[in-house]
Amino acid sequence: MRRIGIVKESAPGERRVAITPDSVAHLRAAGLEVLVETRAGEAAFFPDSMYGQAGAEIVDADELYARADIVACVDRPPAARLRPGTFVVGLLRPDPAYLAELAARGVTAASLDRVPRTISAAQPMDAVTSQENVAGYRAAVVAAHAYERFFPLLVTAAGTARPAKVLVLGAGVAGLAAIGTARRLGAVVTGYDVRPAAREEIASLGANVLDLHGEGGEGEGGYARAQTDEQQQAEQDELAAQIGRQDVVITTARVPGRRPPLLVTEAAVKQLRPGSVIVDLAAGPLGGNVEGSRPDETVVTGDGVTVIGAGNLPATMPAAASTAYAHNVRAFLGHVLRDGELALDPADEIQRAVIVAGLPGGAA
Amino acid sequence: MRRIGIVKESAPGERRVAITPDSVAHLRAAGLEVLVETRAGEAAFFPDSMYGQAGAEIVDADELYARADIVACVDRPPAARLRPGTFVVGLLRPDPAYLAELAARGVTAASLDRVPRTISAAQPMDAVTSQENVAGYRAAVVAAHAYERFFPLLVTAAGTARPAKVLVLGAGVAGLAAIGTARRLGAVVTGYDVRPAAREEIASLGANVLDLHGEGGEGEGGYARAQTDEQQQAEQDELAAQIGRQDVVITTARVPGRRPPLLVTEAAVKQLRPGSVIVDLAAGPLGGNVEGSRPDETVVTGDGVTVIGAGNLPATMPAAASTAYAHNVRAFLGHVLRDGELALDPADEIQRAVIVAGLPGGAA
Repeated sequence: MRRIGIVKESAPGERRVAITPDSVAHLRAAGLEVLVETRAGEAAFFPDSMYGQAGAEIVDADELYARADIVACVDRPPAARLRPGTFVVGLLRPDPAYLAELAARGVTAASLDRVPRTISAAQPMDAVTSQENVAGYRAAVVAAHAYERFFPLLVTAAGTARPAKVLVLGAGVAGLAAIGTARRLGAVVTGYDVRPAAREEIASLGANVLDLHGEGGEGEGGYARAQTDEQQQAEQDELAAQIGRQDVVITTARVPGRRPPLLVTEAAVKQLRPGSVIVDLAAGPLGGNVEGSRPDETVVTGDGVTVIGAGNLPATMPAAASTAYAHNVRAFLGHVLRDGELALDPADEIQRAVIVAGLPGGAA
Repeated sequence: MRRIGIVKESAPGERRVAITPDSVAHLRAAGLEVLVETRAGEAAFFPDSMYGQAGAEIVDADELYARADIVACVDRPPAARLRPGTFVVGLLRPDPAYLAELAARGVTAASLDRVPRTISAAQPMDAVTSQENVAGYRAAVVAAHAYERFFPLLVTAAGTARPAKVLVLGAGVAGLAAIGTARRLGAVVTGYDVRPAAREEIASLGANVLDLHGEGGEGEGGYARAQTDEQQQAEQDELAAQIGRQDVVITTARVPGRRPPLLVTEAAVKQLRPGSVIVDLAAGPLGGNVEGSRPDETVVTGDGVTVIGAGNLPATMPAAASTAYAHNVRAFLGHVLRDGELALDPADEIQRAVIVAGLPGGAA
């Protein structure tokens, strides 16, 4: 464990990089040699020259995988490229097939989407939170950009423009960031979440809290719990009526690894007036919160409603997202490395949650 | 003067409409019959059905020009379509050739870009101000959308994101709106203008005032005065040094009918760090404030700086821009119509300024 390699991401549209130039100095101070794959940060406006100036060595992919003891990435690297004994850190979205592949390669793998949110010492490593924060801010900016009226109240000689009404569904990290940003821009914001704790957070941001029904929905680890079909239906019916009063709807209700709940039906979309905007942060291969939304696609309905399937929003703000992610990676490495060597400890609660392959006595 | 016709704009990219559905009722209450050209408001998300519900009659272009006594438009309508005796109201950007054409047709023409800003009774008619206000807000939103980091200061478990540094050059209506909006979003904003009164307005918005030299530059009618080449050069040299410290630069220095001053040279652009954004509101056929910017084009330089030639920003926020513009048209019509008839008065200071063709005893 002497050398860390920063790979160039290969997923389509992925513009983030796991370590930014300003984090290279910190890693070197921690005793690591830093290898950076050619053009790894280019899409986030971090040219190779910036990494070079920070003391990293620029190498090609072959050299990186051959020499790096630690591989830092955002999305999954190809398991086949990882040497046995490599320690890989990323947002690996571990599923049984990929875990089996990693185990077969004999690598140790830390998945930063498994950081236990309830342990405060783990919060600086919480890459899901840092990226959701970017996504929520970005969703509000994307909505303001797509909306063809003002967000703030404007009183001018040419009349008064009323503020935009923005409804944010789901008040996790992304939803709260969207609420805060839309409020900054002067919109009248309403937030909704099934979890009572999240409703308090909506109110604490000064937004209106939409109250549809009283059931709690907080699940394990601070994530929203999956709802039953009946709960979803009741929610949809009440929501449809509320949605018709809005100018902008931002949906953020995701449940890791599961189909997102359908919150905005086609009938609800039809109730919005022409020029309204919906941003669906949950849009993904499994579906979204909005009927008919597709990741990375923008559709204008026949009624003039713009439906933006947001896809991977952190990748569209890669400089900020990568900077925060690099902090998460550094914090995690600070926790598991002792003098540049991996100090695995199955008794450590954070390691047990995050290290998904190769932990002695761990799950894999 | 019994019928007003709202034309569908024909300029490329022009999505505004002169009268919005909510203004139709006001015009009817003032005694006018309202004709709307088919699909006139469609690009601003005002479908024909909304005009119909407001009491307007939807007609084709031939019928509109044949029947309308007043023609309301944003951009110039083709003079050849106007019947003799028609009263046309728009942002006509009158030049001698177009004025001669209008005079030859025997039409009366009011150009809302000639509203005297210093007469307070005329302010509700001031379409340049209302549209510049949209442009300035929009410029800040476009900049936030193009910038790949946060505008606000964010303190999170994954580190602190410093706020974006935004420099706004030119603090007329558009510049002040951009300053206000960027500040709403949490950026650290600096404004610059050669006019001492504008500097005070920058400070009153809570932004930093950039002081390069002490010369006043206020010209006639509240517009910025054209600067000499020497003044521009001195300004450019000092600005280049300041620009290198910014993340976002928004330029708004326009002088009606003249080449805009070059404020951001290629050398200054080179001083910005990768990921920085420039929005040039002055980009137009005559040039812009930023070297190499082109209207409606976005260029990323080899150094990773995004240069957005903004072109016609109000047309990209047509619902808000049209709503404000319709107020301006209504205010002006309220000033010149008596019981639905045109009451021309060459002694009226506003009419003398605005009516550029057909005013008895007027300039044309």
